[in-house]
Amino acid sequence: MPIYLRGLLLSSQGSQQNISSQKLADLLGVDPWQIRKDFSYFGGFGTPGIGYNVEKLIKQIKKILKLNVDHKAVLVGAGNLGKAILAYPGFKIYGFDIVAVYDNDLQKIGKKVENVMIEDVSNLTSLKKRKIDLGIIAVSRDAAQKIADTLVKADIKGILNFSPCHINVPKKVKVITIDIAMDLARLPYYIPMS
Amino acid sequence: MPIYLRGLLLSSQGSQQNISSQKLADLLGVDPWQIRKDFSYFGGFGTPGIGYNVEKLIKQIKKILKLNVDHKAVLVGAGNLGKAILAYPGFKIYGFDIVAVYDNDLQKIGKKVENVMIEDVSNLTSLKKRKIDLGIIAVSRDAAQKIADTLVKADIKGILNFSPCHINVPKKVKVITIDIAMDLARLPYYIPMS
Repeated sequence: MPIYLRGLLLSSQGSQQNISSQKLADLLGVDPWQIRKDFSYFGGFGTPGIGYNVEKLIKQIKKILKLNVDHKAVLVGAGNLGKAILAYPGFKIYGFDIVAVYDNDLQKIGKKVENVMIEDVSNLTSLKKRKIDLGIIAVSRDAAQKIADTLVKADIKGILNFSPCHINVPKKVKVITIDIAMDLARLPYYIPMS
Repeated sequence: MPIYLRGLLLSSQGSQQNISSQKLADLLGVDPWQIRKDFSYFGGFGTPGIGYNVEKLIKQIKKILKLNVDHKAVLVGAGNLGKAILAYPGFKIYGFDIVAVYDNDLQKIGKKVENVMIEDVSNLTSLKKRKIDLGIIAVSRDAAQKIADTLVKADIKGILNFSPCHINVPKKVKVITIDIAMDLARLPYYIPMS
Protein backbone atom coordinates (compact mmCIF):
# COMPACT_ATOMS: atom_id res chain seq x y z
CA MET A 1 0.00 0.00 0.00
CA PRO A 2 2.67 2.61 0.85
CA ILE A 3 4.43 1.73 -2.41
CA TYR A 4 1.23 2.27 -4.40
CA LEU A 5 0.72 5.56 -2.60
CA ARG A 6 4.19 6.72 -3.55
CA GLY A 7 3.61 5.83 -7.19
CA LEU A 8 0.28 7.62 -7.25
CA LEU A 9 1.66 10.70 -5.52
CA LEU A 10 4.48 10.86 -8.04
CA SER A 11 2.08 10.55 -10.98
CA SER A 12 -0.30 13.12 -9.44
CA GLN A 13 2.57 15.62 -9.36
CA GLY A 14 2.52 15.23 -13.11
CA SER A 15 -1.14 16.31 -12.82
CA GLN A 16 -2.41 13.06 -14.31
CA GLN A 17 -6.13 12.50 -13.75
CA ASN A 18 -6.29 8.79 -14.45
CA ILE A 19 -3.76 6.01 -14.50
CA SER A 20 -3.99 2.50 -15.90
CA SER A 21 -2.85 -0.47 -13.84
CA GLN A 22 -0.26 -1.10 -16.58
CA LYS A 23 1.21 2.39 -16.26
CA LEU A 24 1.25 2.24 -12.46
CA ALA A 25 2.89 -1.18 -12.73
CA ASP A 26 5.64 0.21 -14.98
CA LEU A 27 6.21 3.09 -12.57
CA LEU A 28 6.60 0.78 -9.58
CA GLY A 29 8.14 -2.27 -11.17
CA VAL A 30 5.33 -4.64 -10.11
CA ASP A 31 2.84 -6.81 -12.01
CA PRO A 32 -0.33 -5.04 -13.26
CA TRP A 33 -2.49 -8.02 -12.22
CA GLN A 34 -1.19 -7.67 -8.66
CA ILE A 35 -2.32 -4.03 -8.64
CA ARG A 36 -5.79 -4.89 -9.96
CA LYS A 37 -6.08 -7.66 -7.37
CA ASP A 38 -4.96 -5.47 -4.46
CA PHE A 39 -7.17 -2.53 -5.44
CA SER A 40 -10.20 -4.77 -5.92
CA TYR A 41 -9.98 -5.64 -2.19
CA PHE A 42 -11.01 -2.16 -1.18
CA GLY A 43 -13.69 -1.38 -3.66
CA GLY A 44 -12.14 -1.04 -7.09
CA PHE A 45 -12.39 2.52 -8.51
CA GLY A 46 -11.09 1.37 -11.88
CA THR A 47 -13.01 2.14 -15.06
CA PRO A 48 -12.22 -0.18 -18.00
CA GLY A 49 -10.35 1.71 -20.74
CA ILE A 50 -9.82 4.74 -18.50
CA GLY A 51 -8.04 3.35 -15.48
CA TYR A 52 -8.03 4.55 -11.89
CA ASN A 53 -8.83 8.05 -10.77
CA VAL A 54 -5.55 9.13 -9.19
CA GLU A 55 -6.98 11.64 -6.68
CA LYS A 56 -9.67 9.25 -5.43
CA LEU A 57 -7.20 6.43 -5.07
CA ILE A 58 -4.71 8.59 -3.16
CA LYS A 59 -7.46 9.72 -0.80
CA GLN A 60 -8.60 6.15 -0.19
CA ILE A 61 -5.12 4.72 0.42
CA LYS A 62 -4.24 7.65 2.71
CA LYS A 63 -7.37 6.89 4.71
CA ILE A 64 -6.48 3.20 4.99
CA LEU A 65 -2.95 4.06 6.14
CA LYS A 66 -4.28 6.79 8.48
CA LEU A 67 -2.32 9.36 6.52
CA ASN A 68 -5.43 11.44 5.84
CA VAL A 69 -4.45 13.66 8.77
CA ASP A 70 -1.06 15.38 9.02
CA HIS A 71 1.43 13.97 11.50
CA LYS A 72 4.04 15.88 13.44
CA ALA A 73 7.33 14.20 14.23
CA VAL A 74 10.46 14.97 16.23
CA LEU A 75 13.94 13.88 15.28
CA VAL A 76 16.56 12.96 17.88
CA GLY A 77 20.13 13.10 16.60
CA ALA A 78 21.47 15.87 14.39
CA GLY A 79 24.48 14.01 12.98
CA ASN A 80 24.95 13.12 9.33
CA LEU A 81 22.03 10.72 9.35
CA GLY A 82 19.76 13.19 11.13
CA LYS A 83 20.70 15.91 8.64
CA ALA A 84 20.05 13.53 5.75
CA ILE A 85 16.63 12.69 7.19
CA LEU A 86 15.76 16.37 7.55
CA ALA A 87 16.82 17.05 3.97
CA TYR A 88 15.05 13.96 2.65
CA PRO A 89 12.39 14.80 0.10
CA GLY A 90 9.09 13.06 0.39
CA PHE A 91 8.16 13.35 4.04
CA LYS A 92 5.89 16.26 3.15
CA ILE A 93 3.98 14.43 0.43
CA TYR A 94 2.91 11.86 3.00
CA GLY A 95 1.76 14.63 5.35
CA PHE A 96 4.70 14.49 7.75
CA ASP A 97 6.23 17.52 9.36
CA ILE A 98 9.44 17.25 11.38
CA VAL A 99 8.82 20.11 13.80
CA ALA A 100 11.67 19.67 16.26
CA VAL A 101 15.23 18.33 16.33
CA TYR A 102 17.10 17.31 19.48
CA ASP A 103 20.74 16.53 20.16
CA ASN A 104 23.04 16.36 23.21
CA ASP A 105 26.02 18.00 21.50
CA LEU A 106 26.51 21.53 22.88
CA GLN A 107 28.24 22.47 19.62
CA LYS A 108 25.05 21.74 17.73
CA ILE A 109 22.37 22.97 20.16
CA GLY A 110 21.02 26.37 19.15
CA LYS A 111 22.11 26.03 15.53
CA LYS A 112 19.67 25.54 12.70
CA VAL A 113 19.56 22.65 10.29
CA GLU A 114 17.14 22.76 7.34
CA ASN A 115 15.42 25.70 9.08
CA VAL A 116 14.72 23.72 12.26
CA MET A 117 16.45 24.79 15.49
CA ILE A 118 18.42 22.06 17.27
CA GLU A 119 17.24 21.81 20.88
CA ASP A 120 18.83 20.22 23.95
CA VAL A 121 17.62 16.64 24.26
CA SER A 122 17.48 16.98 28.05
CA ASN A 123 14.63 19.45 27.48
CA LEU A 124 12.60 16.81 25.64
CA THR A 125 9.46 16.55 27.73
CA SER A 126 5.82 15.84 26.94
CA LEU A 127 5.07 16.27 23.26
CA LYS A 128 1.36 15.55 23.70
CA LYS A 129 0.39 19.21 24.04
CA ARG A 130 2.19 19.99 20.81
CA LYS A 131 0.30 17.11 19.14
CA ILE A 132 3.50 15.38 18.11
CA ASP A 133 2.97 11.63 17.93
CA LEU A 134 5.97 10.30 16.02
CA GLY A 135 9.66 10.17 16.92
CA ILE A 136 12.66 9.43 14.72
CA ILE A 137 15.81 8.06 16.38
CA ALA A 138 19.07 8.80 14.57
CA VAL A 139 21.59 8.37 17.36
CA SER A 140 24.32 5.81 18.00
CA ARG A 141 23.43 2.28 19.10
CA ASP A 142 24.60 2.93 22.67
CA ALA A 143 22.21 5.84 23.10
CA ALA A 144 19.17 4.44 21.28
CA GLN A 145 17.41 2.72 24.19
CA LYS A 146 17.77 5.78 26.44
CA ILE A 147 16.32 8.02 23.73
CA ALA A 148 13.48 5.54 23.14
CA ASP A 149 12.68 5.68 26.89
CA THR A 150 12.69 9.50 26.73
CA LEU A 151 10.33 9.47 23.73
CA VAL A 152 7.99 7.01 25.45
CA LYS A 153 7.90 9.27 28.53
CA ALA A 154 7.10 12.17 26.20
CA ASP A 155 3.98 10.28 25.06
CA ILE A 156 5.16 9.44 21.59
CA LYS A 157 3.05 6.76 19.87
CA GLY A 158 5.30 5.58 17.08
CA ILE A 159 9.08 5.43 16.61
CA LEU A 160 11.13 5.11 13.44
CA ASN A 161 14.45 3.76 14.72
CA PHE A 162 17.60 4.07 12.61
CA SER A 163 19.90 2.60 15.24
CA PRO A 164 20.92 -0.93 14.28
CA CYS A 165 19.47 -2.56 17.40
CA HIS A 166 16.23 -3.74 18.90
CA ILE A 167 14.71 -1.23 21.33
CA ASN A 168 12.29 -2.15 24.09
CA VAL A 169 9.15 -0.05 24.43
CA PRO A 170 5.71 -0.61 25.97
CA LYS A 171 3.28 -2.48 23.72
CA LYS A 172 1.21 0.65 23.00
CA VAL A 173 4.17 2.18 21.16
CA LYS A 174 4.87 0.94 17.63
CA VAL A 175 8.51 0.75 16.51
CA ILE A 176 9.82 0.32 12.98
CA THR A 177 13.58 -0.29 12.87
CA ILE A 178 15.61 0.49 9.76
CA ASP A 179 18.99 -1.21 9.75
CA ILE A 180 20.71 -0.16 6.54
CA ALA A 181 23.53 -2.67 6.99
CA MET A 182 20.93 -5.43 7.27
CA ASP A 183 19.23 -4.21 4.11
CA LEU A 184 22.54 -4.45 2.29
CA ALA A 185 22.94 -7.93 3.80
CA ARG A 186 19.79 -9.03 1.96
CA LEU A 187 21.39 -8.37 -1.44
CA PRO A 188 24.03 -11.11 -1.86
CA TYR A 189 21.35 -13.80 -1.51
CA TYR A 190 19.88 -12.68 -4.83
CA ILE A 191 23.02 -12.28 -6.87
CA PRO A 192 25.23 -14.92 -8.45
CA MET A 193 28.53 -15.50 -6.68
CA SER A 194 31.59 -14.07 -8.39
CA MET B 1 17.07 -14.57 8.61
CA PRO B 2 19.02 -11.28 8.48
CA ILE B 3 17.35 -10.27 11.77
CA TYR B 4 18.41 -13.54 13.42
CA LEU B 5 21.91 -13.03 12.10
CA ARG B 6 22.09 -9.57 13.63
CA GLY B 7 20.94 -10.88 16.99
CA LEU B 8 23.44 -13.72 16.91
CA LEU B 9 26.29 -11.44 15.86
CA LEU B 10 25.47 -9.06 18.69
CA SER B 11 25.39 -11.88 21.22
CA SER B 12 28.60 -13.39 19.84
CA GLN B 13 30.35 -10.05 20.50
CA GLY B 14 29.52 -10.76 24.12
CA SER B 15 31.48 -14.00 23.55
CA GLN B 16 28.48 -16.18 24.39
CA GLN B 17 28.90 -19.79 23.30
CA ASN B 18 25.26 -20.86 23.38
CA ILE B 19 21.97 -19.04 23.29
CA SER B 20 18.46 -20.25 24.10
CA SER B 21 15.59 -19.51 21.76
CA GLN B 22 14.02 -17.54 24.66
CA LYS B 23 17.07 -15.32 25.07
CA LEU B 24 17.40 -14.74 21.33
CA ALA B 25 13.68 -13.95 21.24
CA ASP B 26 14.07 -11.33 23.99
CA LEU B 27 17.01 -9.80 22.16
CA LEU B 28 15.07 -9.48 18.91
CA GLY B 29 11.56 -8.89 20.16
CA VAL B 30 10.08 -11.95 18.43
CA ASP B 31 8.35 -15.12 19.67
CA PRO B 32 10.65 -17.98 20.79
CA TRP B 33 8.42 -20.56 19.06
CA GLN B 34 8.90 -18.69 15.78
CA ILE B 35 12.67 -18.97 16.19
CA ARG B 36 12.51 -22.70 16.94
CA LYS B 37 10.23 -23.20 13.94
CA ASP B 38 12.44 -21.20 11.57
CA PHE B 39 15.67 -22.83 12.72
CA SER B 40 14.18 -26.33 12.47
CA TYR B 41 13.74 -25.71 8.72
CA PHE B 42 17.45 -25.79 8.14
CA GLY B 43 18.55 -28.58 10.37
CA GLY B 44 18.11 -27.55 13.97
CA PHE B 45 21.41 -27.24 15.89
CA GLY B 46 19.57 -26.72 19.16
CA THR B 47 20.38 -28.91 22.17
CA PRO B 48 17.62 -29.08 24.79
CA GLY B 49 18.64 -27.29 27.98
CA ILE B 50 21.71 -25.78 26.32
CA GLY B 51 20.31 -23.90 23.34
CA TYR B 52 21.90 -23.10 20.02
CA ASN B 53 25.61 -22.93 19.36
CA VAL B 54 26.07 -19.28 18.38
CA GLU B 55 29.12 -19.73 16.12
CA LYS B 56 27.62 -22.65 14.23
CA LEU B 57 24.34 -20.84 13.72
CA ILE B 58 26.07 -17.67 12.47
CA LYS B 59 28.09 -19.73 10.01
CA GLN B 60 25.00 -21.53 8.74
CA ILE B 61 22.86 -18.39 8.32
CA LYS B 62 25.74 -16.57 6.63
CA LYS B 63 26.00 -19.44 4.18
CA ILE B 64 22.27 -19.34 3.44
CA LEU B 65 22.40 -15.58 2.88
CA LYS B 66 25.62 -15.91 0.85
CA LEU B 67 27.39 -13.74 3.38
CA ASN B 68 30.07 -16.37 3.98
CA VAL B 69 32.32 -14.51 1.58
CA ASP B 70 33.22 -10.83 1.99
CA HIS B 71 31.56 -8.37 -0.37
CA LYS B 72 33.01 -5.15 -1.67
CA ALA B 73 30.70 -2.21 -2.30
CA VAL B 74 30.94 1.27 -3.78
CA LEU B 75 28.95 4.24 -2.58
CA VAL B 76 27.75 6.95 -4.96
CA GLY B 77 26.87 10.24 -3.28
CA ALA B 78 28.96 11.81 -0.51
CA GLY B 79 26.28 14.08 0.93
CA ASN B 80 24.88 13.80 4.45
CA LEU B 81 23.27 10.46 3.72
CA GLY B 82 26.40 9.08 2.08
CA LYS B 83 28.50 10.20 5.04
CA ALA B 84 26.01 8.62 7.44
CA ILE B 85 26.19 5.35 5.50
CA LEU B 86 29.99 5.37 5.60
CA ALA B 87 29.97 6.00 9.34
CA TYR B 88 27.26 3.41 9.96
CA PRO B 89 28.39 0.65 12.27
CA GLY B 90 27.52 -2.87 11.34
CA PHE B 91 28.47 -3.14 7.67
CA LYS B 92 31.71 -4.83 8.71
CA ILE B 93 30.06 -7.49 10.88
CA TYR B 94 28.14 -8.70 7.82
CA GLY B 95 31.39 -8.82 5.82
CA PHE B 96 30.83 -5.66 3.78
CA ASP B 97 33.58 -3.29 2.85
CA ILE B 98 32.80 0.05 1.20
CA VAL B 99 35.98 0.44 -0.81
CA ALA B 100 35.18 3.48 -2.95
CA VAL B 101 33.05 6.62 -2.81
CA TYR B 102 32.00 8.67 -5.82
CA ASP B 103 30.45 12.12 -6.17
CA ASN B 104 30.11 14.75 -8.90
CA ASP B 105 30.79 17.74 -6.63
CA LEU B 106 34.22 19.20 -7.39
CA GLN B 107 34.33 20.57 -3.85
CA LYS B 108 34.18 17.04 -2.49
CA ILE B 109 36.29 15.10 -5.01
CA GLY B 110 39.78 14.40 -3.66
CA LYS B 111 38.74 14.83 -0.04
CA LYS B 112 38.52 11.95 2.39
CA VAL B 113 35.46 10.85 4.30
CA GLU B 114 35.81 8.10 6.93
CA ASN B 115 39.25 7.37 5.46
CA VAL B 116 37.89 6.72 1.96
CA MET B 117 38.90 9.10 -0.84
CA ILE B 118 36.00 10.66 -2.78
CA GLU B 119 36.47 10.01 -6.50
CA ASP B 120 34.94 11.67 -9.56
CA VAL B 121 31.80 9.76 -10.56
CA SER B 122 32.63 10.27 -14.23
CA ASN B 123 35.63 7.98 -13.64
CA LEU B 124 33.33 5.17 -12.47
CA THR B 125 34.08 2.39 -14.94
CA SER B 126 34.16 -1.38 -14.71
CA LEU B 127 34.31 -2.59 -11.14
CA LYS B 128 34.56 -6.24 -12.12
CA LYS B 129 38.34 -6.34 -12.02
CA ARG B 130 38.29 -4.91 -8.51
CA LYS B 131 35.78 -7.62 -7.54
CA ILE B 132 33.21 -5.06 -6.40
CA ASP B 133 29.70 -6.44 -6.83
CA LEU B 134 27.47 -4.11 -4.80
CA GLY B 135 26.59 -0.45 -5.27
CA ILE B 136 24.89 1.95 -2.87
CA ILE B 137 23.03 4.93 -4.33
CA ALA B 138 22.75 7.96 -2.05
CA VAL B 139 22.07 10.73 -4.55
CA SER B 140 19.02 12.89 -5.24
CA ARG B 141 15.97 11.43 -6.95
CA ASP B 142 16.75 13.24 -10.22
CA ALA B 143 20.16 11.64 -10.49
CA ALA B 144 19.31 8.13 -9.28
CA GLN B 145 18.43 6.51 -12.62
CA LYS B 146 21.56 7.86 -14.30
CA ILE B 147 23.74 6.53 -11.49
CA ALA B 148 21.96 3.17 -11.63
CA ASP B 149 22.74 3.00 -15.37
CA THR B 150 26.38 3.82 -14.63
CA LEU B 151 26.56 1.09 -12.00
CA VAL B 152 24.97 -1.46 -14.34
CA LYS B 153 27.53 -0.57 -17.01
CA ALA B 154 30.23 -1.06 -14.39
CA ASP B 155 29.04 -4.68 -13.94
CA ILE B 156 27.51 -4.24 -10.51
CA LYS B 157 25.23 -7.12 -9.47
CA GLY B 158 23.21 -5.63 -6.66
CA ILE B 159 22.12 -2.10 -5.76
CA LEU B 160 20.94 -0.67 -2.46
CA ASN B 161 19.01 2.44 -3.51
CA PHE B 162 18.31 5.22 -1.01
CA SER B 163 16.66 7.51 -3.56
CA PRO B 164 12.90 7.56 -3.03
CA CYS B 165 12.05 6.29 -6.48
CA HIS B 166 11.86 3.14 -8.54
CA ILE B 167 14.91 2.59 -10.73
CA ASN B 168 14.95 0.49 -13.89
CA VAL B 169 17.74 -2.03 -14.27
CA PRO B 170 18.22 -5.25 -16.27
CA LYS B 171 16.74 -8.34 -14.63
CA LYS B 172 20.14 -9.75 -13.72
CA VAL B 173 20.70 -6.85 -11.31
CA LYS B 174 18.90 -7.00 -7.96
CA VAL B 175 17.73 -3.69 -6.45
CA ILE B 176 16.57 -3.06 -2.89
CA THR B 177 15.10 0.41 -2.42
CA ILE B 178 14.99 2.07 0.99
CA ASP B 179 12.55 4.97 1.14
CA ILE B 180 12.77 6.36 4.65
CA ALA B 181 9.73 8.59 4.18
CA MET B 182 7.70 5.55 3.17
CA ASP B 183 8.92 3.69 6.25
CA LEU B 184 7.68 6.54 8.40
CA ALA B 185 4.41 6.40 6.44
CA ARG B 186 3.86 2.85 7.69
CA LEU B 187 3.72 4.00 11.33
CA PRO B 188 0.40 5.89 11.65
CA TYR B 189 -1.50 2.77 10.57
CA TYR B 190 -0.47 1.08 13.82
CA ILE B 191 -1.09 3.89 16.26
CA PRO B 192 -4.35 5.18 17.67
CA MET B 193 -5.51 8.49 16.23
CA SER B 194 -5.08 11.50 18.51
